[in-house]
Amino acid sequence: VRSFVIIGRTATASSDFLLDDLAGSSGRLDVLTRCVRAALLTSHGVRKDADVFLVLLGGERAPRTVRIQGETAKFLRPDERSLAVLLQKSLASHADDDATGFVDLRHGVSLSRGGVVELLPMFEGRPLYVLSEGAPDVREATLAKGAVIVLGDHTGFDEDTLAALRARGATSASLGPVSLHSDDAVCVMNNELDRRAL
Amino acid sequence: VRSFVIIGRTATASSDFLLDDLAGSSGRLDVLTRCVRAALLTSHGVRKDADVFLVLLGGERAPRTVRIQGETAKFLRPDERSLAVLLQKSLASHADDDATGFVDLRHGVSLSRGGVVELLPMFEGRPLYVLSEGAPDVREATLAKGAVIVLGDHTGFDEDTLAALRARGATSASLGPVSLHSDDAVCVMNNELDRRAL
Repeated sequence: VRSFVIIGRTATASSDFLLDDLAGSSGRLDVLTRCVRAALLTSHGVRKDADVFLVLLGGERAPRTVRIQGETAKFLRPDERSLAVLLQKSLASHADDDATGFVDLRHGVSLSRGGVVELLPMFEGRPLYVLSEGAPDVREATLAKGAVIVLGDHTGFDEDTLAALRARGATSASLGPVSLHSDDAVCVMNNELDRRAL
Repeated sequence: VRSFVIIGRTATASSDFLLDDLAGSSGRLDVLTRCVRAALLTSHGVRKDADVFLVLLGGERAPRTVRIQGETAKFLRPDERSLAVLLQKSLASHADDDATGFVDLRHGVSLSRGGVVELLPMFEGRPLYVLSEGAPDVREATLAKGAVIVLGDHTGFDEDTLAALRARGATSASLGPVSLHSDDAVCVMNNELDRRAL
């Protein structure tokens, strides 16, 4: 499976945002909804071999992580509002309050307390890539099956996260000369992996 | 300048859609809002050297084309709802009713009656590319400055449009082994052009 981990430093981990003002009321959860689409949806369906982890570091209930798995996801639609509704319903849950690890909520959607540091042990043995500008070009990089791709939102990474990723031996890669939105970064990375059949 | 032409076969050319149900009420104008973001916005601003043409073939007032020019656009936000508001305001206009060619509405946004066939003469002398599956890979293609990239929505092209494009000598190109959403196609194409500094 191919995994995308998107870190939303301000994205709210609680459900108290307005669907009619998603960009303005959710700490930019809109960015993350777009990453879900880019990570999991193709023209004709869902990528069964991909999953996405939204690490939500904003708001009162942070840190929490929403996982959406292509293999089991149902009714995923590409528009921001539908995806925001899915996230809002999921984040309203208290199923993760006293749980350890991910708790299944509905078709392919699960929820966990914790952020990147809690997440990394799940990826033991899989190759980790961090998208960052100025790093070697991904087109020249050695990529392997089971890739875990970690990227920041529009504000990048905090130092603790970067340190944790480096300690795990993450490889840095860049995607070209222009600084891209997170969802475009997911898209370009998916295209590179598709081309290599990884 | 780099131009993207996105053909929405069902996307409404009138303003009578619901912002709260964009995907369900607009003939999939949501697809086109996402293409605007992918075509024009980077992590830190607007692509000054790009513009996007949304060819709207659905609804009562079709065909109409909305042009958004990166060079002069202001207040462009990446989220679907903001872009849908911009399109709704623009499509409510009657400034194009009796006009020939594009009528300026506001910062970088203009509107024209007509579809692809009316549009093509504007691109005289510029290299035309049509994104379509099964065509030669864009990474192997000869690309030139001033590219005009034409792509369909989730339903592809109609025969008349394809014929008009072929008559203009358009080059077909594909983007990899997986069938992508239109906005992802725009993203991958922008990445390829960025890498070649075109």
